[in-house]
Amino acid sequence: MFQTFDNVNDPSQGKARLSALRGELTIRGLKGFLVPLADEHQGEYIPAAARRLLWLTGFAGSAGLAIILKDRAAIFVDGRYTLQVREQVDLAVIEPHHLIEEPPHDWLKTVVGKGDRIGFDPWLMTAAEVARFETALAAVGAEFVAIDGNPVDAVWADRPEPPKGRVSLFPETLAGESAEQKLARLAEVIGKAGADAAILTRPDSIAWAFNIRGQDVPHTPEALSFAILRRDGRPALFIDGAKLDNAVRDRLEQIAAVEPPTAFASALSALGGAVLVDKASAAFEVVRRIEAGGGKVVAGADPVLLPKALKNPTELQGIRAAHLRDGVAMVRFLAWVDREAPKGELDEIAVTKKLEDFRRDTGALRDISFDTIAGAGPNAAIPHYHVSTASNRKVEPNGILLVDSGAQYEDGTTDITRTMIVGTPTEEMIDRFTRVLIGNIRLTLARFPKGTSGAHLDALAREKLWEAGLDFDHGTGHGVGHYLSVHEGPGRIAKTGHVPLEPGMLMSNEPGYYKANAWGIRIENLVIVTAPEAIEGGERPMMGFETVTLCPIDRRLIRPSMMTERERIWLDAYHTEVRDKLLPLVPDKADQAWLVAATAPLSH
Amino acid sequence: MFQTFDNVNDPSQGKARLSALRGELTIRGLKGFLVPLADEHQGEYIPAAARRLLWLTGFAGSAGLAIILKDRAAIFVDGRYTLQVREQVDLAVIEPHHLIEEPPHDWLKTVVGKGDRIGFDPWLMTAAEVARFETALAAVGAEFVAIDGNPVDAVWADRPEPPKGRVSLFPETLAGESAEQKLARLAEVIGKAGADAAILTRPDSIAWAFNIRGQDVPHTPEALSFAILRRDGRPALFIDGAKLDNAVRDRLEQIAAVEPPTAFASALSALGGAVLVDKASAAFEVVRRIEAGGGKVVAGADPVLLPKALKNPTELQGIRAAHLRDGVAMVRFLAWVDREAPKGELDEIAVTKKLEDFRRDTGALRDISFDTIAGAGPNAAIPHYHVSTASNRKVEPNGILLVDSGAQYEDGTTDITRTMIVGTPTEEMIDRFTRVLIGNIRLTLARFPKGTSGAHLDALAREKLWEAGLDFDHGTGHGVGHYLSVHEGPGRIAKTGHVPLEPGMLMSNEPGYYKANAWGIRIENLVIVTAPEAIEGGERPMMGFETVTLCPIDRRLIRPSMMTERERIWLDAYHTEVRDKLLPLVPDKADQAWLVAATAPLSH
Repeated sequence: MFQTFDNVNDPSQGKARLSALRGELTIRGLKGFLVPLADEHQGEYIPAAARRLLWLTGFAGSAGLAIILKDRAAIFVDGRYTLQVREQVDLAVIEPHHLIEEPPHDWLKTVVGKGDRIGFDPWLMTAAEVARFETALAAVGAEFVAIDGNPVDAVWADRPEPPKGRVSLFPETLAGESAEQKLARLAEVIGKAGADAAILTRPDSIAWAFNIRGQDVPHTPEALSFAILRRDGRPALFIDGAKLDNAVRDRLEQIAAVEPPTAFASALSALGGAVLVDKASAAFEVVRRIEAGGGKVVAGADPVLLPKALKNPTELQGIRAAHLRDGVAMVRFLAWVDREAPKGELDEIAVTKKLEDFRRDTGALRDISFDTIAGAGPNAAIPHYHVSTASNRKVEPNGILLVDSGAQYEDGTTDITRTMIVGTPTEEMIDRFTRVLIGNIRLTLARFPKGTSGAHLDALAREKLWEAGLDFDHGTGHGVGHYLSVHEGPGRIAKTGHVPLEPGMLMSNEPGYYKANAWGIRIENLVIVTAPEAIEGGERPMMGFETVTLCPIDRRLIRPSMMTERERIWLDAYHTEVRDKLLPLVPDKADQAWLVAATAPLSH
Repeated sequence: MFQTFDNVNDPSQGKARLSALRGELTIRGLKGFLVPLADEHQGEYIPAAARRLLWLTGFAGSAGLAIILKDRAAIFVDGRYTLQVREQVDLAVIEPHHLIEEPPHDWLKTVVGKGDRIGFDPWLMTAAEVARFETALAAVGAEFVAIDGNPVDAVWADRPEPPKGRVSLFPETLAGESAEQKLARLAEVIGKAGADAAILTRPDSIAWAFNIRGQDVPHTPEALSFAILRRDGRPALFIDGAKLDNAVRDRLEQIAAVEPPTAFASALSALGGAVLVDKASAAFEVVRRIEAGGGKVVAGADPVLLPKALKNPTELQGIRAAHLRDGVAMVRFLAWVDREAPKGELDEIAVTKKLEDFRRDTGALRDISFDTIAGAGPNAAIPHYHVSTASNRKVEPNGILLVDSGAQYEDGTTDITRTMIVGTPTEEMIDRFTRVLIGNIRLTLARFPKGTSGAHLDALAREKLWEAGLDFDHGTGHGVGHYLSVHEGPGRIAKTGHVPLEPGMLMSNEPGYYKANAWGIRIENLVIVTAPEAIEGGERPMMGFETVTLCPIDRRLIRPSMMTERERIWLDAYHTEVRDKLLPLVPDKADQAWLVAATAPLSH
């Protein structure tokens, strides 16, 4: 099982561990210290060795930051975790705060004074984050100090070893381009940015550029590592040799100098020249080392970000194949839910396990692409819900089940949400589901010119909800990697998505609606941004979306009369495509019958 | 007549004037000099004394920049003027370039070398513009040098005097707020920005803040002036005393120190402290003076920009009254066009004059708010068309007439576009008109939450065009002042409109479609952003738009079957409102009958 359901937090240790950490702060002359939830790579998933926030406080959420002062401690979490944090930390020793409404750098200003020194680990924060704290602290005469050697590690006796997941070569038959070609393209990008070198600190960027995959963190097949690319000259890859077998090492040494991670810091100091650094993801220490060594930092996007997002024809072929395979697993799963749920015994964990089983049955599952969000009833109203033995709910009659899940196959990463009704939906559920569906279809059908960004399209997915005084509090779509991270930039369909969409980007399309404490709806397909093409009778080539997710959308929750004819036609055509492509691949007769029924045309 | 139709350009003078200017450059040791189309206030309309580009080159467009080198000269214009510039300048001595595709700072890099000095007038360019040129020139070892005393003025013998338009007080009964209250609010804004003072260089900002209006430039009732506001203490207004009668001066001296414009530069040098400057509109010289005097520039938006955009209830009442009045003039005009055009004798100039006459008949017309764009046939395909005796076209049978126009009334500024068919439209015209209309209605009907910007809504007005492979190359909407500039920030419904829309903003809604060399369509209403309000059955308050423009939309160009029921209902309701409000105010029986027919429900 890739997913676990244990309650991992332990608030009872908080007091003793905070006390031990405070001893270290005294030794270092610090008034306080920041403990973010991050590793040196600022990735979505971090290894156990870097989960300092969990170890110290007990908080097990996916985002947060603690500030430990001598006499008090605060933990900052966003709206998803305001309830959870109160259950997971010892409230006697740590005060929870809202990360967005009360930003930590603002809070810090109110509790420190002139001459105070607040420490941070310069490998765990980006330059942009550090700048915010520096400015805030300077305003009250305090100092933000980079500390070498994390004081948490000094008191964390049984801290796990850094991961040593085996690295594999990602075959060109799947990548569609050799590492040599990619590195040559990147050298050009570096030159165009006016730089002599570029620093890669994101493992998914490195995985793409060097055509490797790893096993260091859950759900994302990346190898924790760093790289220095050069406009002219050989790249350097900083990676633990224990992760490389001889064949992999031999191949990597053909294209790069392979060095241990411990050599990265001194390599930064020795660089000189103009160095491209992505301040949104690179650690503050990267910038500090380059500048201390006489190099000039050129701020700009990680040069891999855009090329990686623009999938090539081979990758697109793999993505389509992965979605066909995943569609079969999803159909078997949905048919099973439809049969089993009315019996009243299914719960969220059972659902999650069964879905993983169906995916494993494909014989191609490498991992799930994130922990499945399986929410029954009120839990479906929590967009980023994570089921545990403590939160697990039964799937109840006449209730909604929302399942957001994905798979890592070697030819592609999937991410799909389907919302099902068990029994009879209310009129309100049907109204809301239809509005969400219309938003999803409107975005799917959008044609748009070059230069259009996700921020421009986001409203298309929300208009029908806004009209009824409704909305949802997450983005409409994110980029998805190719057998890599299920969330990747730079494209984003959201109010903040200012990067133009470009052909080959793989994006999610996932509007939702959440009725707090009652139920929730989300409908998510992945779509590929298509190349500009002429439209009959038109004048300007337009881009659009090709839907790759293949899975029925619950017709029992749709009110066709609310939809335009064009939207109904799209849904029927989509269901026909789903049926035609999946039916030959679904092994079981009962599941075949379910698929045929589930993809019947809308009646209106 | 507020509008004139003369051909003002004279390319024949270009050669001699360039030659004279080059003599001045030699004296100043310059390799070249920049001549922008701008005055010290970076306003939309500039006085004759500042039209250096026109005098030097003959180019009469509304935007452009010339770079005069010793041995060559280039003029940069945008896509609107690529044809016009070739007719208006002497191509033997000036090369036209495309302002956007070949930015002047990039071009300059290719024609200058190490040690070259390129001069500019630091009062005529913003700090942001100067930075672009400085960076570009530094890359090739050349220097961008601020020159005191514009060399063009040294050779422009009959340069007009700066305008001395009489300033009037704008009554609180129309403004809805006293200058004292406004200045007190602005002092708070300055404090919140962390500044001790703020510089106002935009005359419309000053007009709003001090409750004055002026007569210095065409079509915008503003007085060219500068101001310094302070967080604590008395504002200073720098304005030519010749513009003030005793009553106005006495009133202004109650609220500000009134000083001559010549005192502005030294006042900047003497400021010190933290000074809020809008680098998008303030002259480079403003920044230079403040910094040379030991002050610290705090970059931020002109503090008047947002408060001015948020119209108060008194202003909104005036705006509605102005649109009622303007609607009557428009109805009389459209009825007249419908009667006269089929006779085949109308031309664009006659149409423009007649419309101004109808507006003058209201007895309240202070000015037109911009030169009317009256385009017949192919001229309608030019979004920013400006009719002259040379370009004037007949309104032809079975052709389109597009009229974009507006008025300055003391209680409000209007801006409206209507597109009419004379005779029988083609199917293509009807299809395109209906798509543009659907975009206009979709935007009108949009409900949206707090924080939504124009960039998020822009696609709603374009979706139906994009679907058919069509688009238009201008923004969908701009802010409109209150008896002030017809184009104002900070809100903007366009891909670049990132400022959230807020209740009380007056915006245009003007999607279009242009078939090059054939005809064009634009439908423009002004709308007020409404306050968030609950929607029945909904959860979140939503903002929206109240349409204030009252004028029929040509039903002969609409295909109702392309519209949704909601869109048809809106149009019929709008036409009912137009008829009910205007019919009692239209004096002539024939015009009344026309209005009744023009506002009949759609038949479908």
